[in-house]
Amino acid sequence: MSPKISERGKTQPSSPMRRLEKPFLEAKEKRDRIYQLNIGQPDIETPEEYLNVIKNLKEKVIKYGPSTGLPEYRKTLAKYYQSYGINVGWEDIVVTTGGSEAIIFALSAVCDPGDEVIIPEPFYANYNGFANMAGVKIVPVLSKAETGYALPSIAEIENKITDKTKAIMICNPGNPTGYAYSEEELEQLKTLCKKFSLFLISDEVYREFVYEGKHNSILEKDDFDEYGIITDSLSKRFSLCGARLGCVVSKNKELMSAITRMAQARLCPPTIEQLGAIEVHKLGEEYYSSIRNEYKRRRDTIMKHLNDMEETFCKMPNGAFYMLVKLPIKDCVDFATYMLTEYQLDNETVLISPGNGFYATEGLGMDEIRIAYILNTKDLDRAMVILKEGLKTYRKTRGL
Amino acid sequence: MSPKISERGKTQPSSPMRRLEKPFLEAKEKRDRIYQLNIGQPDIETPEEYLNVIKNLKEKVIKYGPSTGLPEYRKTLAKYYQSYGINVGWEDIVVTTGGSEAIIFALSAVCDPGDEVIIPEPFYANYNGFANMAGVKIVPVLSKAETGYALPSIAEIENKITDKTKAIMICNPGNPTGYAYSEEELEQLKTLCKKFSLFLISDEVYREFVYEGKHNSILEKDDFDEYGIITDSLSKRFSLCGARLGCVVSKNKELMSAITRMAQARLCPPTIEQLGAIEVHKLGEEYYSSIRNEYKRRRDTIMKHLNDMEETFCKMPNGAFYMLVKLPIKDCVDFATYMLTEYQLDNETVLISPGNGFYATEGLGMDEIRIAYILNTKDLDRAMVILKEGLKTYRKTRGL
Repeated sequence: MSPKISERGKTQPSSPMRRLEKPFLEAKEKRDRIYQLNIGQPDIETPEEYLNVIKNLKEKVIKYGPSTGLPEYRKTLAKYYQSYGINVGWEDIVVTTGGSEAIIFALSAVCDPGDEVIIPEPFYANYNGFANMAGVKIVPVLSKAETGYALPSIAEIENKITDKTKAIMICNPGNPTGYAYSEEELEQLKTLCKKFSLFLISDEVYREFVYEGKHNSILEKDDFDEYGIITDSLSKRFSLCGARLGCVVSKNKELMSAITRMAQARLCPPTIEQLGAIEVHKLGEEYYSSIRNEYKRRRDTIMKHLNDMEETFCKMPNGAFYMLVKLPIKDCVDFATYMLTEYQLDNETVLISPGNGFYATEGLGMDEIRIAYILNTKDLDRAMVILKEGLKTYRKTRGL
Repeated sequence: MSPKISERGKTQPSSPMRRLEKPFLEAKEKRDRIYQLNIGQPDIETPEEYLNVIKNLKEKVIKYGPSTGLPEYRKTLAKYYQSYGINVGWEDIVVTTGGSEAIIFALSAVCDPGDEVIIPEPFYANYNGFANMAGVKIVPVLSKAETGYALPSIAEIENKITDKTKAIMICNPGNPTGYAYSEEELEQLKTLCKKFSLFLISDEVYREFVYEGKHNSILEKDDFDEYGIITDSLSKRFSLCGARLGCVVSKNKELMSAITRMAQARLCPPTIEQLGAIEVHKLGEEYYSSIRNEYKRRRDTIMKHLNDMEETFCKMPNGAFYMLVKLPIKDCVDFATYMLTEYQLDNETVLISPGNGFYATEGLGMDEIRIAYILNTKDLDRAMVILKEGLKTYRKTRGL
């Protein structure tokens, strides 16, 4: 008799995008171009300052670094957060292999198997994978398209708290929503966490991508040191998705001691990437604002086209580089597949993410798609024309 | 009230070496040189072929790669294993972020929280950290210094099997033992696994480091496809510890599907490292045998000195680059600390790993130390003279 794999192995979710892989690969063979609006892989070049470090590497041995990251890099990160009024020292930061590992460490340090974390849905689909591996139950609380996916009411969140609840987790600004939480919303969440002794895990991967006003972080004030955990990544900020560098930040010493011991088991994050990362942090606000302006143009390009589309709803998002769009459709997976397998405009088409993949509650998001505005405005213009025409033809074909 | 961290966060073990960090850092200030025989960081240079890929990088964007690794790299790995008679295809391989992640994935895909894995002790201390994070209980079964840490009897292993047991795990050749399992031992283990429907996880990170005879792998014969899981890493083989590249290999399709979904959640292993890794695999047997010869010289250097030391026992190990040595002492932690804080020879000293850190059973290994022979023979000669003299002085000081 063959050995049996674990229950968590069986139930580990596949990436929602994965389900479109086959039609996508087939479409790639047939079509001249597929505009990929489905993933958060920016087309913006990695800063030269990073590549130059890699290209001029002096090291003769690619050695283990410290488990918590190179001290110089941790100090660089501390300065980065301090420049935003987040009062952390380098000892409050553990460097991780991507934002993914930061979330895995945070969840594992906060929850035992069977414990619960409350997360506003829709949320980043891979949270499900991390939670499943760690044996953690995600309890969703609905945020709505009409409010632009603002924070659900505190009463609704409080209503989900049980004696298994160990943390509330947010993504700010949000993937897939693009929603950037207000200072007031964060204050309400912080009060709730204090009331029930819960951690607040804030995934701030898109913290540099807030288009109007400033980004609000949970650790900006010093009244939340024991409760707040930031998880972060360089992937989007510096177009370094393949470098796998992130970090977890908290002033809770007991928590950071646990995370440090978890980090020790896996030895270290990639070494030479950290050398490059030290350099890109010297770029500073001028760099961030140039990137921000570019994404803002892209967002506005998409919005202009959406406003031209009938029966389509999307409240202008203020952050990240995603938007969730409500379309006059009933099955977003069918629509996304149709765009790959049946539709073409001058032999080109578009790949978008079905919205349902971002909801934990079965049946939600079926009329939504996520658009990642990670192409230049010219390509986005063309992609949106294709999407608009494709939607019209789809609705006719399906009798909608 | 501050929020509470998880039980697994509280119980996550710190690296045993970590406990010597303070005396080590203090000794570094005082001494001219400390010969570090404590960690598996080879001093051998990373192959130029790898560094050249990094230095001549053409990519302008460091992008996400596929979750399971770059197809070309997976094909390279398949060829590597095939060249040793291990009949796997590239679809049987998932590239991981270091051997660490390979073990985490294997344990999580095989065990649910509360399940058990049987491991011969002494074993690589970080297995404890991975198991604790995954909620897996390690059940040790004793291998003995007198046999050179050969496989314990099958009866002893069978005796530890419960209805919670999901796998047996070995490190072959072993860290910290240097023991390379014989074909016969592996056949016995395979038969046992088949009888009880257990997975056999084989950590083959040191597979190229077998000094007499060949390395035996659990997947060399095609009668074990459903049961065998190899975890591997480039760290030692190519002096690429800081690159964080490993892989998990299995022909069990259900298992590899689960691991693929786990890999999807964390997006991908580091990208440019895989480009370099493709190149170093072209070096082939000539490279491996040159490295092997160098480590063999080092092993023999250590053995020569050990044979000169009174009341010291170490059966010549045949693999990896570690040996566990029984010394006429009662507390290896005290001895290791003494060498850092009290002893010096011409203002130089030696850092070794206390043996007890490699045992799960409390109280075992107190008279053992692990030596990692990762320095050149000249340095090893000197280090062993210091160790020998230090041991004499230590025994007098402690009245042993």
